Amino acid sequence: MNGRYHWDKQLPDGVADLFYAEAARKRAAEERLRQVFFSYGYTEIIPPTFEHYESLATEAGAQLQEEMYRFFSREGRTLALRADMTIPIARIVGTKLYDQPLPLRFCYYAANVFRHEEPQAGRRHEFTQAGVELIGAAGEQADAEVMVLLVEALQKLSLRDFRISLGQAAFFKALVRESPISAETMALLWQAIDAKDDVTLRRLVASLELPAGKAAVLAALPQLQGGADVLDRADRLSLEPAARAAVRNLRRVYELLDAAGVAGHVRFDLAQVRGMDYYTGILFQVFVPGLGFPVCSGGRYDNLIAHFGADLPAVGFAMGVERLLLALEAQGVNLPVDIAPHVIVAGRPWAESIRLAAHARRRGLRVELELAARSGEDLIRYAVAREARYVLSRADEGCWRVWQGGAEKAYALDDLLEEMTHWSA
Amino acid sequence: MNGRYHWDKQLPDGVADLFYAEAARKRAAEERLRQVFFSYGYTEIIPPTFEHYESLATEAGAQLQEEMYRFFSREGRTLALRADMTIPIARIVGTKLYDQPLPLRFCYYAANVFRHEEPQAGRRHEFTQAGVELIGAAGEQADAEVMVLLVEALQKLSLRDFRISLGQAAFFKALVRESPISAETMALLWQAIDAKDDVTLRRLVASLELPAGKAAVLAALPQLQGGADVLDRADRLSLEPAARAAVRNLRRVYELLDAAGVAGHVRFDLAQVRGMDYYTGILFQVFVPGLGFPVCSGGRYDNLIAHFGADLPAVGFAMGVERLLLALEAQGVNLPVDIAPHVIVAGRPWAESIRLAAHARRRGLRVELELAARSGEDLIRYAVAREARYVLSRADEGCWRVWQGGAEKAYALDDLLEEMTHWSA
Repeated sequence: MNGRYHWDKQLPDGVADLFYAEAARKRAAEERLRQVFFSYGYTEIIPPTFEHYESLATEAGAQLQEEMYRFFSREGRTLALRADMTIPIARIVGTKLYDQPLPLRFCYYAANVFRHEEPQAGRRHEFTQAGVELIGAAGEQADAEVMVLLVEALQKLSLRDFRISLGQAAFFKALVRESPISAETMALLWQAIDAKDDVTLRRLVASLELPAGKAAVLAALPQLQGGADVLDRADRLSLEPAARAAVRNLRRVYELLDAAGVAGHVRFDLAQVRGMDYYTGILFQVFVPGLGFPVCSGGRYDNLIAHFGADLPAVGFAMGVERLLLALEAQGVNLPVDIAPHVIVAGRPWAESIRLAAHARRRGLRVELELAARSGEDLIRYAVAREARYVLSRADEGCWRVWQGGAEKAYALDDLLEEMTHWSA
Repeated sequence: MNGRYHWDKQLPDGVADLFYAEAARKRAAEERLRQVFFSYGYTEIIPPTFEHYESLATEAGAQLQEEMYRFFSREGRTLALRADMTIPIARIVGTKLYDQPLPLRFCYYAANVFRHEEPQAGRRHEFTQAGVELIGAAGEQADAEVMVLLVEALQKLSLRDFRISLGQAAFFKALVRESPISAETMALLWQAIDAKDDVTLRRLVASLELPAGKAAVLAALPQLQGGADVLDRADRLSLEPAARAAVRNLRRVYELLDAAGVAGHVRFDLAQVRGMDYYTGILFQVFVPGLGFPVCSGGRYDNLIAHFGADLPAVGFAMGVERLLLALEAQGVNLPVDIAPHVIVAGRPWAESIRLAAHARRRGLRVELELAARSGEDLIRYAVAREARYVLSRADEGCWRVWQGGAEKAYALDDLLEEMTHWSA
C-alpha cells in the first residue's frame, strides 16, 4: 500500500473521482434534466471535447478565454478544451445546420466543460453542464419558453426556494454603446455594478464621456433590482429607444411567465452585467439561498451564430450539475438512487449458478455472482452489507437455499426457477 | 454565411459533432450496454477527464504514452487527457477503495478517451469507451464472468457474427521473461508475430539468446491459432511451468464459457501479443467480419493496481462505442431511436397553448410550441416533415383543431384536455 498517499495527493486540483451513490446521484440528476428537455422537443447535440482555440474563443469574454485549457495538435495548431457548450453549438448550427426548418431545439445534459480558475471553494476545473439552446426564434415567446423549461427542470430536481435573477443585456449596452470605454474601465465598471459599490460606480461614471441622461441611469443601475416595479421605475428614467425596448421586452417576457404560472420565481436585476459577453437580450441567473454562486445562467445571444455562418437569433441556458447537487444537498433533498444488487448467487456448479443468474437478469434483476467463496453467515453478512434482497446458495445436489430478508427456504432447481418468475426489480 | 466553409474545415482531425439520430443512436447503444453491465452488479465509476500525466502513464505501453494529449497546469505540472479508463480506475481503487469488500465491480458506458494517432480511416482522436473492471477476484470464474458479460453486451446491441480472439499474456511473457530483449527488438518481435511474418520472426528469434525449447515455441506462435485444439497442440510443445499454467488457465476458462453457452464465439490465438502492456493473464479482442480493427479488447491485469496502492488482481474489457456503431451499420442493424416530437401546439393565446403543452408533457409526450407562426398547410407540412403525431391549432375562441395522421377534428378546450388523457407516448 506504499504508493497510496503519494498518488492520492497528486490528483490535480479541481477534478474529482465519482463512484457508488455519488456517481449514481449525478446520473439521476442528469436523467431528470434530460427527460424535461426532451419533453419540450429538444434533442441532444454533442460537440467534441476539444477543438481549435480560435473557434472556442469566438465572442468568449476575456475571462473565459483566459480560463481555457490550451494545448497543441501535432500540426502545431492551438487546441482548447471546451469551456462552455453554447459556443461549440453555435459553431455547429452556423456551419452545418443553417438549412434546417427553424427553430432548432438542442440540449445537452451530461456535458463536461473545463475552466482553469484559481482553486477556491466550489470551483471545479472540470464540471458538468446541462442546458438548452433554442435557435432561430426571436421574440418573447422564445425567451419565455426557455425560462418556463428552466423552472420545470429545477422543479424536476426537487429544488425548492430558487430565485431567477432576470436582467437585460441590451439595457446596459444601450447606455454605453456610443461611448469609448476601454476594456479595463469596462471591467471596473462591471465590478462596481456587480458589487453595488455606488461610490466607485459614481466616480467611474463621472470619468466617462457620457451624456448626462445615460450617466444618471448608469449610476442608478444598482437600484434597479426587485419585483415588477423595477420596470416601472426604469420607464420613468430618461431612456433612449434601445433601452426602452429592453424594458418593454422584459415586461412582455414577465407577462408570458406570469401566464405560465412561474413569474413568482423571478426577480428583476438590471444591474446584472457580469458575464454579459455574447448576450444581447434577456440575461438570467438562478440563485439558491446559502449558495454564493449561481447554479444556472443563460440569456439571449442574437449575434453569436453569425460569427460561424448563418445569422440566427438564439436563447438558452446552462445549469451547473455539480452546483445543483450541492444546492439539493444543502436543502436536504436526496435524489433516490438504487445501486444495490438484487440477487447474490453463491452456489456451484458454475452451470447452475450461471443459469439462475441469467434467469434473474431476464426479470430485470441485478445479479452478482459470488466469486470470493463466502458461505454461511459470512455470505449473509456480506449480502446484508450490500443491501441485497436475495441470496441463492447451493445446499445439496439439485437443491438451492434462498435467503430473503432473514428467512431461508430450500428449493429444487426447477422449483426455484419457477419461483423466480414471480420476482421483479 | 461568409464564415461557413472557413470554420467547417477547421474542426480538428479525429473529432466529430453529433446531433439528431446519430447522437440518439450513440446514446441508445450506451444505454443498452449500461443495462447489461448493471444487470451483472457493476456500478458506474467516473474518473476525471484529465489528470497528472505520470499517473496516466503508469504501466501504459510506449505507444499509448506517445499518443496521449499532454498540456500544463498553471503550476507547471504535466497533465494529460485520459487515453483509457483502466489506468484511472486502477488509481482510484488502489488509492481510495482498498478497504471495500471484494470483489469490486465497476463499469463505464459513455466515457470519452483521447489518443493522438496519425489520422487514418476509422481512427478518432476522441472516442467513447464502454467497459467493466472486475477487481479483487483472481481465477477463471472471474475471467469467465467478464467474457460472458461481454457476449451478452454484444448481443444486446444486436451485433451478429462476432468472434472473440482469446490469448494469454503469461504464455508469451513466460517465453521471453528470462532473456534480455531490448524494447526495439520486442516491438519488432510483436510486429512479426502480429503480421504472422514467419521469415522475420524466425530471424528475430535466432538473434535472441533463448533456450532452444523456448525459441521453437516462440517461432511457432503464429500457428497457435484456431479452435480448442490449439490448447492440445500447445500442450504437446515443450513448455516451462508458467507457460503450461497459462494453457491450463485458458482451458479452464473455455470450459466455463462452454457451460455458459458462449464458447462458440471464441477462437484461440496465442500469437495475440500486440497491446499486451499491463496484461498478465487472459487477453482478448473482439472482431467483426469486414472491420479491420477490434471493436473491443480486454484481459487480466494483476499487477497494475499495486502501482497505486493496494495489490489487487483484476480483469476487464473496453468496447469502442463508435466502432460498435460502425460494425452494426455494416451488418445492417439500426438501433431504433425516436426523437420526433409527438405534439406541436400552434395556437394562441399563450396561456392556453402552455396549458395544453403541459398537459401533454405530463402524459409523457414530447411537445413543441410553434414559434415560427406557421399555420394552415404550412404548419401541417412542417409537422409531417418532423414526423409529429398531433398538431393542435386554435380555430376560434375556446375552440381547438386537432390534426392527427391526415384527419382533423375540432374540440372545445375542456373536451380537448379530456381527450388528451387518452394519449400516451
